[in-house]
Amino acid sequence: MYKLYSMQRSGNSYKVRLALAFIDAPYRSVEIDILRGESRTPDFLAKNPSGQVPLLEVADGRYLAESNAILWYVAIGTSLAPESRIERAEALQWMFFEQHALEPNIGAAYFWLALVRGGRDLQTHALDDWMERGYAALQVMENHLKLHEFFAAGQLTVADIALYGYTHVAEKCDFDLASFPAVRAWLKRVELSPNFVSMDWRPASDAVLDDPTGVAA
Amino acid sequence: MYKLYSMQRSGNSYKVRLALAFIDAPYRSVEIDILRGESRTPDFLAKNPSGQVPLLEVADGRYLAESNAILWYVAIGTSLAPESRIERAEALQWMFFEQHALEPNIGAAYFWLALVRGGRDLQTHALDDWMERGYAALQVMENHLKLHEFFAAGQLTVADIALYGYTHVAEKCDFDLASFPAVRAWLKRVELSPNFVSMDWRPASDAVLDDPTGVAA
Repeated sequence: MYKLYSMQRSGNSYKVRLALAFIDAPYRSVEIDILRGESRTPDFLAKNPSGQVPLLEVADGRYLAESNAILWYVAIGTSLAPESRIERAEALQWMFFEQHALEPNIGAAYFWLALVRGGRDLQTHALDDWMERGYAALQVMENHLKLHEFFAAGQLTVADIALYGYTHVAEKCDFDLASFPAVRAWLKRVELSPNFVSMDWRPASDAVLDDPTGVAA
Repeated sequence: MYKLYSMQRSGNSYKVRLALAFIDAPYRSVEIDILRGESRTPDFLAKNPSGQVPLLEVADGRYLAESNAILWYVAIGTSLAPESRIERAEALQWMFFEQHALEPNIGAAYFWLALVRGGRDLQTHALDDWMERGYAALQVMENHLKLHEFFAAGQLTVADIALYGYTHVAEKCDFDLASFPAVRAWLKRVELSPNFVSMDWRPASDAVLDDPTGVAA
């Protein structure tokens, strides 16, 4: 059974929990609160030198980092992974787009505006850039979604999960989706897919047993 | 035969040229100078709405964007792609790391300091952040390379090519690799691999024939 180290309110962590829910895969969950430094302990850094969540233990002592690489790994052989070579590459195209065009902007705005107390005042200089580039990324998505129901292979795949992670919190950090109707319709399509779970959803009792902080109950 | 739209001095474009050289795949090349706005023309935006190079035409009118997705696509079935599920995921882990930890920092510094005339003065505020985060990424790579010859699967893969793209120009944009001996040894290993080509290398005559600007000769 997988063991997932993740933070409840992190969009990158949520992506993996969402994928595991869609494919109904059991896993044990460990809550790591990066805001309390729990991803920077010697114990955690021994598992992931980058000091980031999510982190998946795929076998005894073998760890996989990077949310989108984890998505790719868990999706192999399921309906979340396209089958053909070109459709797989197109899914990856959108997942790389997510990591350099969406996550560093909407993800950063979400982190500092929605998670860190007083974060807005600390990041006034960066915020304009995040907003501009975040809106540019949303426009690229809007243009695609005007013509397609999903991002790759004509079905819900890991590309949608990767992009959903931070797009669905955009309105919690100053972005206005009013002028992106295709993006809003796609968000709804993802949410209406079987087995969808919200970011608030927590995995069941194993999570509590494995929680080193005692706060995930 | 593939048709590749790329910019000679772009690290992201070079990655693809390097992969195609390693696997000895023929392709036609079209030079797109983003500094002259050639990736923002209506014709190019119709091919790639993100307005970025590299872009690979994989079949008539079907285009794949994002350097690392292109690497993944062209490498399938060659020695550059690991075979096992976990090693493929580990290669992707490093490719996603490259796109959010290395390319936005060393890549950005390279673009503004080495390619754009007067760029240093335009980006004084951002430069400190790029340097700090770029060095942090190099340290993560150094720690891995102290124990491994390559980034995944114990052999040269697309993960190495992705990371080589901007690491090898780090010293052209203020980064000092003196305290990263494992990174420097790995750069040499990549350069000594059969069929390696430098960033200066240009594909042969087809490139000239297809060059819409006439400057690639």
